[in-house]
Amino acid sequence: MDHALIMAGGAGTRLWPLSRENRPKQALKLVGEATLFQHAVRRLAPLFPLERIWVVTRAEHVELLAAQVPDLPRQNFIVEPEGRGTAPAIGLAAVHLQRRDPQAVMAVLTADHYISNTERFRQVLAAALEVARRGFLVTLGIQPSAPSTGYGYIEQGQPLKPVQGFDVYRAVRFTEKPDRQTAERMLASGAFSWNSGMFIWRIERILDEFARQMPDFYAQLQQVAAALGTQAYPAVIERVWPQVTKQTIDYGVMEGARDVAVIPVEMGWADVGSWGSLVDLLPANENGNILVGSQHILLEAQNTLIFGGERLIAAIGVSDLIIVDAGDALLICHKNHEQQVKEVVEILKQQKRLDLI
Amino acid sequence: MDHALIMAGGAGTRLWPLSRENRPKQALKLVGEATLFQHAVRRLAPLFPLERIWVVTRAEHVELLAAQVPDLPRQNFIVEPEGRGTAPAIGLAAVHLQRRDPQAVMAVLTADHYISNTERFRQVLAAALEVARRGFLVTLGIQPSAPSTGYGYIEQGQPLKPVQGFDVYRAVRFTEKPDRQTAERMLASGAFSWNSGMFIWRIERILDEFARQMPDFYAQLQQVAAALGTQAYPAVIERVWPQVTKQTIDYGVMEGARDVAVIPVEMGWADVGSWGSLVDLLPANENGNILVGSQHILLEAQNTLIFGGERLIAAIGVSDLIIVDAGDALLICHKNHEQQVKEVVEILKQQKRLDLI
Repeated sequence: MDHALIMAGGAGTRLWPLSRENRPKQALKLVGEATLFQHAVRRLAPLFPLERIWVVTRAEHVELLAAQVPDLPRQNFIVEPEGRGTAPAIGLAAVHLQRRDPQAVMAVLTADHYISNTERFRQVLAAALEVARRGFLVTLGIQPSAPSTGYGYIEQGQPLKPVQGFDVYRAVRFTEKPDRQTAERMLASGAFSWNSGMFIWRIERILDEFARQMPDFYAQLQQVAAALGTQAYPAVIERVWPQVTKQTIDYGVMEGARDVAVIPVEMGWADVGSWGSLVDLLPANENGNILVGSQHILLEAQNTLIFGGERLIAAIGVSDLIIVDAGDALLICHKNHEQQVKEVVEILKQQKRLDLI
Repeated sequence: MDHALIMAGGAGTRLWPLSRENRPKQALKLVGEATLFQHAVRRLAPLFPLERIWVVTRAEHVELLAAQVPDLPRQNFIVEPEGRGTAPAIGLAAVHLQRRDPQAVMAVLTADHYISNTERFRQVLAAALEVARRGFLVTLGIQPSAPSTGYGYIEQGQPLKPVQGFDVYRAVRFTEKPDRQTAERMLASGAFSWNSGMFIWRIERILDEFARQMPDFYAQLQQVAAALGTQAYPAVIERVWPQVTKQTIDYGVMEGARDVAVIPVEMGWADVGSWGSLVDLLPANENGNILVGSQHILLEAQNTLIFGGERLIAAIGVSDLIIVDAGDALLICHKNHEQQVKEVVEILKQQKRLDLI
């Protein structure tokens, strides 16, 4: 059977002051009236029954996320005592799914991206599941629209047989976030797509790769798997998990994996990683302003995002600002400086302002 | 005897969102730990006993202001049912003082200006009282430091005898806020000072000028004066005041008055009319930032005023902004647009947002 796993373990310090330790970005209503996590579940719902939609997240976020999708079975939340990166999170979910359904095909999906063309998303996912059943580790590639230096890239190699109308390629190489020049070269070549962080594979295939490429972690994972369904499980994972080395699935598995396929797709995909990415994503009015929230008065304001809270925000003569009112904290940031938001969070950590991080 | 009258009837829509209908600017802590009204009383205290410090203000502000200076006798608050401009406010105070002390010399002072050199202020006031006793209508002129187009100007004519070390001149002309070119010419001539709105005169002299130059108002004032000390007073002023034509003391009296003297003085005087004027007044740090309030994190911010409230304000990469957090409303305004703050108040009036104006 096909299963979907939503990775919902992130935090998102670059979306401060809205995102906090106990209010991660996937739990926020950043686009439209649903949270990113609710969007992630809803776009899967026509393809998977709820009992086959799984969520991996950190212990402190389970209640928050479960409350946002009350129909999702509570036992489908796979809980990490603490985040150890995407590779361990996927490995943990894989052994849970394996116990339930050893023949499972597993689609690893994200909660911190936005996808505007959900119909296209479902189509490519259906195609990817078919390719995965044949034994490939499939990754969804995003057809790049710009020489972005913010994403990893996947090089497309030998074409495989098209599936359900989608071109499919062997993946040659996974590249980390490039410099501008490299990004421009990759974009011009037409042979690269962005790494979406979405993967589709048979459970046994990914577990084999863990065993081959991350043997220490695989051994730890076997201890956890052996305790599944027993009363010892909580104690075992609490003991094992802090010893697990942090690792990403890209570095730990994908770069060295066998039989990796990539399916490039254009589906209105956007990483919602920072306020700048939301500026690119949300619709602007004729002055370039993006207004989210109820009360604003703008005079001669341009190209400014106002993400409002309860109170009135009056903006006069400003341009290229990101203004976010989170109630107890307020951000006013020039668009060119949006990557420095995380520095504010660092300062607050040093100041031990636990109420604000 | 000498009496001081503090004009405290203003509103100050250009200091929104801090100033409101029921929280006028003179009641705000804009400079230091005291409100402008408290500053106004304190700088007079060494020169006048509290029982000879009077306040004219609008009915709706009496309680607020009285609470800020509890030692000031409650009967020294002269209440206008509604504001009709500076001329009627001064006339009303004059008949109150006349009844108490027909020989009074009256210093008309302001609550919406800041004076950093209070010692110099007291010296010039003592000199002005002496000139006023000789029958002059004395005005304090501020030695101009720039060709400001935001103030009225007074032209100095024939020198009179210096008093207590201050030069004294006959005032030739009162000029409204000039254009830039005119302001530069006046500054260069050395014969003009800014109109501070502070006046010193004998009661009988100013009442004579009202009788001569504003006879309709003088007749109305006589009705009010006749009711002073009687039970009819509240009904009389409630009836008369709405009929009084709005007028400023400059237009209504000073421009056409006889024997007007001006004493130019440099005493760190500043009009606190708008956020821009506060920017000029408050001390900036090495990055040009002015931070009032407790919680800020600034990264690469320059020449920005943050007038904070309770919550944390993080400003990144911004410059030349005025940021004011009033709790229920927030202003983010480029310095070059600070005069448009009052447009926000107009819009809120149209929207009937009585909670925010």
